[in-house]
Amino acid sequence: MDRIDIAEKFSRFSEHWRPKVVAEVNGQEFKLVKVKGDFPWHHHDDEDELFLVWRGRFRIEFRDRIVDLGPGEACVVPRGVEHRTAADEEAEIMVFEPRAVRNTGNVVDEAFTAPNGVKI
Amino acid sequence: MDRIDIAEKFSRFSEHWRPKVVAEVNGQEFKLVKVKGDFPWHHHDDEDELFLVWRGRFRIEFRDRIVDLGPGEACVVPRGVEHRTAADEEAEIMVFEPRAVRNTGNVVDEAFTAPNGVKI
Repeated sequence: MDRIDIAEKFSRFSEHWRPKVVAEVNGQEFKLVKVKGDFPWHHHDDEDELFLVWRGRFRIEFRDRIVDLGPGEACVVPRGVEHRTAADEEAEIMVFEPRAVRNTGNVVDEAFTAPNGVKI
Repeated sequence: MDRIDIAEKFSRFSEHWRPKVVAEVNGQEFKLVKVKGDFPWHHHDDEDELFLVWRGRFRIEFRDRIVDLGPGEACVVPRGVEHRTAADEEAEIMVFEPRAVRNTGNVVDEAFTAPNGVKI
């Protein structure tokens, strides 16, 4: 029930591809993540994901097309759909998805699979 | 899997206190609502609500305090907690909550209770 200042939360960390949980509602997490470069291809068997861009440009790449997003633009990746996320320059992204989802979905990647439930 | 442009979605409607669904993920709805004035006091027995301000200033009033939010600021109202929302001037708000929640919670209000599932 406290005020959450998104810009201030983003200012507290700098790593890429390491989601931070800022709130939990109804078993879903509202997370912030900084991204740069290409994430591994993956899918989530049972979780839809909503991405909303805060700063920068962000791509969601599907096998047949690319959705290119800027600030204030969002996209849903439905469960089961293979995708990867990418950004040429650093971007700041808000994510809504179920608690404790593995960020790399069906893939375990030494560099990209991130710890869950890290709050900020 | 299409691009959702939040500003463009807000430009499509003008009524106050009538949420519009822009996406659904994991049984939750991502909604946009324009607000102005004071909403009725209410609570939701089983639903948490996340509010994130897109434009303007927005208050979430609890019985013992007020959370005042500007653009890029968010607040969670946990289930069971009595609250009302308010804005002195028109504000544009993003809401994340379970599908088909009644906007006035435990209250039915002729002016404020809004139809569910209206997409935009």
